[in-house]
Amino acid sequence: MTHYKGYLIDLDGTIYRGTEKIEEAGAFIEGLVKRKIPYLFVTNNSSRTPEQVAEKLREFGIEAKDDQVFTTSMATANFIAERKSDSTAYVVGEEGIIAALQAKGIHITDEKPDFVVMGIDRGINYEKLTKACLAVRNGAFFISTNGDIALPTERGFLPGNGSITSVVTVSTGVQPVFIGKPESIIVEQALKVLGISKDETIMVGDNYDTDILAGINAGMDTLLVHTGVTTKEHLTKYKVKPTHVLDSLDQWEF
Amino acid sequence: MTHYKGYLIDLDGTIYRGTEKIEEAGAFIEGLVKRKIPYLFVTNNSSRTPEQVAEKLREFGIEAKDDQVFTTSMATANFIAERKSDSTAYVVGEEGIIAALQAKGIHITDEKPDFVVMGIDRGINYEKLTKACLAVRNGAFFISTNGDIALPTERGFLPGNGSITSVVTVSTGVQPVFIGKPESIIVEQALKVLGISKDETIMVGDNYDTDILAGINAGMDTLLVHTGVTTKEHLTKYKVKPTHVLDSLDQWEF
Repeated sequence: MTHYKGYLIDLDGTIYRGTEKIEEAGAFIEGLVKRKIPYLFVTNNSSRTPEQVAEKLREFGIEAKDDQVFTTSMATANFIAERKSDSTAYVVGEEGIIAALQAKGIHITDEKPDFVVMGIDRGINYEKLTKACLAVRNGAFFISTNGDIALPTERGFLPGNGSITSVVTVSTGVQPVFIGKPESIIVEQALKVLGISKDETIMVGDNYDTDILAGINAGMDTLLVHTGVTTKEHLTKYKVKPTHVLDSLDQWEF
Repeated sequence: MTHYKGYLIDLDGTIYRGTEKIEEAGAFIEGLVKRKIPYLFVTNNSSRTPEQVAEKLREFGIEAKDDQVFTTSMATANFIAERKSDSTAYVVGEEGIIAALQAKGIHITDEKPDFVVMGIDRGINYEKLTKACLAVRNGAFFISTNGDIALPTERGFLPGNGSITSVVTVSTGVQPVFIGKPESIIVEQALKVLGISKDETIMVGDNYDTDILAGINAGMDTLLVHTGVTTKEHLTKYKVKPTHVLDSLDQWEF
């Protein structure tokens, strides 16, 4: 088994399930810490700041510095900053995406923005959708933090950012650039932050359609763990298999 | 030219443009009144009641009784009533759709509804979208009053009901039954109300993709008038032509 020098690691379904820690994942992270192997948690969640996410991990007793969390909002901000300096964006989204864009000096406005950015927004309303549609029709570059169609909650599956993004896609006929997993954009951005080459880094997650596919799309090795979305039975349907598959992360040999 | 015994007539772009009457259309309606030819105004607008629509027409000096207006909300209510008696529906929408369903005795609730109905709702929010998604996932029959992707306004093109409907479609993977034009459902329902046979009735409108296609889909003769959306140049792109085409409705020979 290859000895990877860097790890990109999913969160929900991999490290915890909602409010419950996955104990075997805790042992896995301790293994990384003990061996001083760099790792970065990579999440499609655009609503929270890295500080909030790291705090939640630390409450589970998992070692996570604030700068060891990389959200799709940060990937979006980096994508925009690389594309255009001193840019403006109209944002539909919550605290995490607004903070990430502002941290990169992107000015948030609804006046002729260069970009329209859509992330999950539980305060969505018709006026926000209207402003996004008008700006996209006016030529703004259209970005969506992630295409997740549903959010698993105790009430059931709630509308995800990908479904709300579709309002603007359907109304304007313009397809957004999606940043989050399974797109390679978030992975490429995360690798830059981690500072380890693609060949020596592995993508770890529980969801074939997002985590594993993101790694495959980026041309990386992948590790699927059956503690979340993708079961063994699901996996039989996919032609391109993950590089490694485990029932739980404590079985991993570094 | 055939002498039609009944007319189904579109409103916006055909009889008026927003708040402005199309004068030639006024003469056309007077021609129908003079000849005692039955007509029904057929609109994809789900937000207003037939009384509100008829009142607007009368303010333009156009003869329109309340029961000469047939909205996609009324077509939706009739469709549900034919499908199931004593039914319940969760509604995302404005006054027109709620009034139409209640008039047919459909009980509006978010508790295990038989149907989920989506019409344009400028008060849309995440909780409404959530309830619609959960009900559709729970097996409710999914209906959308119309698939219009954009609403033309003085601000530009705002999100139409078809684009907001897509949140639920994308999130649940369930396609709705659309009722409004270009679907034949609204036309079939309108013909029942008008009481004239399909062979003797003509569909009149300015928009090929909604009005004319609805007539074609229902197997009716059609009249396209170039006072709204579809220009002469647009029309060259379509293989199946309208039965009749006019620059303005005062040119019509009854």
